[in-house]
Amino acid sequence: MATFETILIVGGGLIGSSLARAAKTYGQADTILMADKNADVVATIKSLNIANEANVDAAKLAADADLVILAVPPGRMADAAASVIPEMKAGAILSDVGSTKGFVIEALTPLLRDDISFVPGHPIAGTENSGPEAGFAELFQKRWCILTPEDETSPAAKRVAAFWEGLGSDVAMMDAKRHDTVLATTSHVPHLLAYALVGTAVDMERVTNNEVVKFSAGGFRDFTRIAASDPEMWRDVFLSNKTAVLEVVDRYIEDLSALKRAIRWGEGDDLLREFSKTRNIRRQIIDAGQDTDAPNFGRDKKPN
Amino acid sequence: MATFETILIVGGGLIGSSLARAAKTYGQADTILMADKNADVVATIKSLNIANEANVDAAKLAADADLVILAVPPGRMADAAASVIPEMKAGAILSDVGSTKGFVIEALTPLLRDDISFVPGHPIAGTENSGPEAGFAELFQKRWCILTPEDETSPAAKRVAAFWEGLGSDVAMMDAKRHDTVLATTSHVPHLLAYALVGTAVDMERVTNNEVVKFSAGGFRDFTRIAASDPEMWRDVFLSNKTAVLEVVDRYIEDLSALKRAIRWGEGDDLLREFSKTRNIRRQIIDAGQDTDAPNFGRDKKPN
Repeated sequence: MATFETILIVGGGLIGSSLARAAKTYGQADTILMADKNADVVATIKSLNIANEANVDAAKLAADADLVILAVPPGRMADAAASVIPEMKAGAILSDVGSTKGFVIEALTPLLRDDISFVPGHPIAGTENSGPEAGFAELFQKRWCILTPEDETSPAAKRVAAFWEGLGSDVAMMDAKRHDTVLATTSHVPHLLAYALVGTAVDMERVTNNEVVKFSAGGFRDFTRIAASDPEMWRDVFLSNKTAVLEVVDRYIEDLSALKRAIRWGEGDDLLREFSKTRNIRRQIIDAGQDTDAPNFGRDKKPN
Repeated sequence: MATFETILIVGGGLIGSSLARAAKTYGQADTILMADKNADVVATIKSLNIANEANVDAAKLAADADLVILAVPPGRMADAAASVIPEMKAGAILSDVGSTKGFVIEALTPLLRDDISFVPGHPIAGTENSGPEAGFAELFQKRWCILTPEDETSPAAKRVAAFWEGLGSDVAMMDAKRHDTVLATTSHVPHLLAYALVGTAVDMERVTNNEVVKFSAGGFRDFTRIAASDPEMWRDVFLSNKTAVLEVVDRYIEDLSALKRAIRWGEGDDLLREFSKTRNIRRQIIDAGQDTDAPNFGRDKKPN
């Protein structure tokens, strides 16, 4: 039996459209409704046939849903919530997939009703591609989904957890503030560093684009994948997790400056020690099933 | 017909052992000799059967070689060259695969003989793994190999170019100083940034290792792959390309600080503009055949 009878996904991008596909593929909802403010996205959703119904107006679909998942960038969460909450039926559950949790909770709390439950969530999954065509049902398989409900033992929290587990995810419950600190390190700052490096390279006039592209296989191409991620989403992530992101970036700049100083003064032993301690964490990530151990992620052996 | 009758590869790590396999697989040398100072590496080379002969003493094998390729970290190039050059036969060619070229050329020039040719080289290829077992014949396929000879039209330069093309590489000729500037951007600094971030994450006491590993799929895991690269090699790269690396890192810190400032002051339009200009370069890299366009490098769809 499906975990939910009817779900409404608001936002038809990479995550929203993957959710719709996954909910259908893994039988987690009987009826899947989708809304997106962009009429082109709605048309694409219809042609992809990944929802039972799709509409530009989320309010028109909210009344039927047992679960409403907001899958829009953090900066649009409040608007999306404001349109669906008044229409939701009593006892229904509201959730979201926002990459920052403190900000989303603060933005949505004034809009909530006593007779609906709010279970904030964040699937640690994605790709560098955007839009409804970029989604796929397997996106959440073996990925973590973090839930940050006020009450981790509530029936609503348990049901949302069951839904994500049904999509193939492992669920972790966590305080929203802790989520924002951890994710600043494991996701937000890595994206910022990649955007910054690709920007630096693009701007370096002595190094033409053509050469950067040509010789990108030395490591740079990895950064360009991350820096190809959705610009609006990431703008919102940084602005909505400002405190934690700035703290981690400051630590990072300190550490990078220490390496820079070691290079300037030729302190080879210090560099060797720093570079040796980072290898172990890679092994742990592979052992935890969070990445492939194929060299270069396995991408180079096949002809491209 | 093979491009060279007999080649000697000094250094049995990822690159050296891949070279041996590739030279054999693609018929670029009739006889392949290998040397490595580490007796365990020599034993592994023998058991892998990737060379016709292997020895801890490169000098013992140098007399027979038409081409000697030094495949050791930049800091060991001078020692390796000093051991083989006196033994090399007149008319033979010396080459190397060092990631930095100005430093290697400066270190080797005083050791050269008038009756051998030196063709410095650098294949833009590698993985995060090290050692003779990590090598594979296809490593150089569709990758660039940069040669920085004094005379790009010399017969020796042309023959080394033909050798690399025979292994599946595209060859680019370039001034050594320009190589070091371009590679600082496309390879050296990306590795430094990755080492620094993984170091920062490891040190953050409020974020336990376990959580960094658990939620690494948000982007962090990409950095750990690069930061798992050979520590000694990379120490040498940074120390031997100090000027260019420090210049690019300084620019990078400026650019990162500008993004940081934009986040602090909530300048969303600036962030959106910066994040939008980086997407195009990813497309160019894919179009140039330097990376796969599969989402997340294609690593997530297969079960791991």
